[in-house]
Amino acid sequence: MAEKSLYNYRVEPQNVDFTLRATLASLGTAVLNTAGVDAHNKGFGVDILHADNHSWILSRMAMEIDRRPQQYADYTVATWINEYGRLLSTRNFTLCDTAGHEFGRAVTQWAMLDLKNRTAVDLSHVGDAHADAIVDCPSPTEKPRKIRTVAPTLHAEHRIVYSDIDFNRHVNTMRYIEMMCDLLPLERLTSPAPVRLDIHFLHESRYGQTLSIGCEERDREALFEIGTDDGTIAVRACLAWK
Amino acid sequence: MAEKSLYNYRVEPQNVDFTLRATLASLGTAVLNTAGVDAHNKGFGVDILHADNHSWILSRMAMEIDRRPQQYADYTVATWINEYGRLLSTRNFTLCDTAGHEFGRAVTQWAMLDLKNRTAVDLSHVGDAHADAIVDCPSPTEKPRKIRTVAPTLHAEHRIVYSDIDFNRHVNTMRYIEMMCDLLPLERLTSPAPVRLDIHFLHESRYGQTLSIGCEERDREALFEIGTDDGTIAVRACLAWK
Repeated sequence: MAEKSLYNYRVEPQNVDFTLRATLASLGTAVLNTAGVDAHNKGFGVDILHADNHSWILSRMAMEIDRRPQQYADYTVATWINEYGRLLSTRNFTLCDTAGHEFGRAVTQWAMLDLKNRTAVDLSHVGDAHADAIVDCPSPTEKPRKIRTVAPTLHAEHRIVYSDIDFNRHVNTMRYIEMMCDLLPLERLTSPAPVRLDIHFLHESRYGQTLSIGCEERDREALFEIGTDDGTIAVRACLAWK
Repeated sequence: MAEKSLYNYRVEPQNVDFTLRATLASLGTAVLNTAGVDAHNKGFGVDILHADNHSWILSRMAMEIDRRPQQYADYTVATWINEYGRLLSTRNFTLCDTAGHEFGRAVTQWAMLDLKNRTAVDLSHVGDAHADAIVDCPSPTEKPRKIRTVAPTLHAEHRIVYSDIDFNRHVNTMRYIEMMCDLLPLERLTSPAPVRLDIHFLHESRYGQTLSIGCEERDREALFEIGTDDGTIAVRACLAWK
């Protein structure tokens, strides 16, 4: 049985907004980087999987941030895998400041994609092969919630450009979070209230496509739906403030 | 007389494009972060200056990248100040891989702004006060070149949103570089040819304004002009490939 792994980060100037606190997108990026580096260190990173024409694909993510750390603050991300389902593996995270106080946590669910026929790989055998990477510790919060329908009242369009795309030529997760945040008023984004993000990745979106970003504002929630110009829903998400 | 200061970086997944090499914007960000951290460490960072209602403002930057490092590569940025003019101080950089081979370099010129009346501070006395921070070593390449006129043939518009702005509520430098790159064809952006960027910051642009980005494509050059909706030119720049 494995232990949680720890990775250290610092809030760099490009990670903060004008309140000098780390943005949600930058904290989400640190969480996803941690997943990539930890999988790499344990021998099942994207680099190794590519040799078999497989890749990890983020399917759902939940992230809770109680308070956003200040510029130049050091923090530690702990990560552990605690479950392999048939189609999704669950990787967990906690974010702690240098005094050891937890200020955030995340639960991510990953599918393994067969790049040749673009189908999900059955993870049953992978779970056995990676059994010694599993940590017997529950997820630090509720798993990503389903978001079924969104009735947008705010809209934006965005043509996918070079700076948006990752190594797969798909829009990277940070950009999706930024596109959603950019539809909201500054007062909401800079509110000190704890926030929870649930995000589902339904379809890939690619260089050259135009995205439509819709937002339904509720009392202490904002729901999002991002679609491509061929009518496919790429992402649904919810931001909820306490 | 001071020595050059060294800062270590790693090419993280969010810093690469689909060729798995660091983007120009991410290398530019590392250079500017280095400036901020080094000024902070030496006691004349923006945090200290703000107490006197002053701030450093980047006026011009030249950056040459011979080859873009790969994802997860470690590299070192060396920085030193070698000149205080009356209005501009010059801070230099070299970028080296772990074998010590230089793969990039930059020269930046900074003004000190009086935040109360928005005028440039005479740096003559600052140069004396900071004399022990000056390193007697020439700039590693030609200083930023003037870009006088641009005749754009390609255009884009961009409304300035939350994710674009820095601690001053101005568009951050990385975003300007991204907006320019995003107008160019992928083949040009991913070419292995060494590239030089010259960029001049003429006026600030702020949250809520709409930018128009113009590009004049030449044989092995692209000239850029970014203006705000009140008709002011905010930035002129040139990318040149060897």
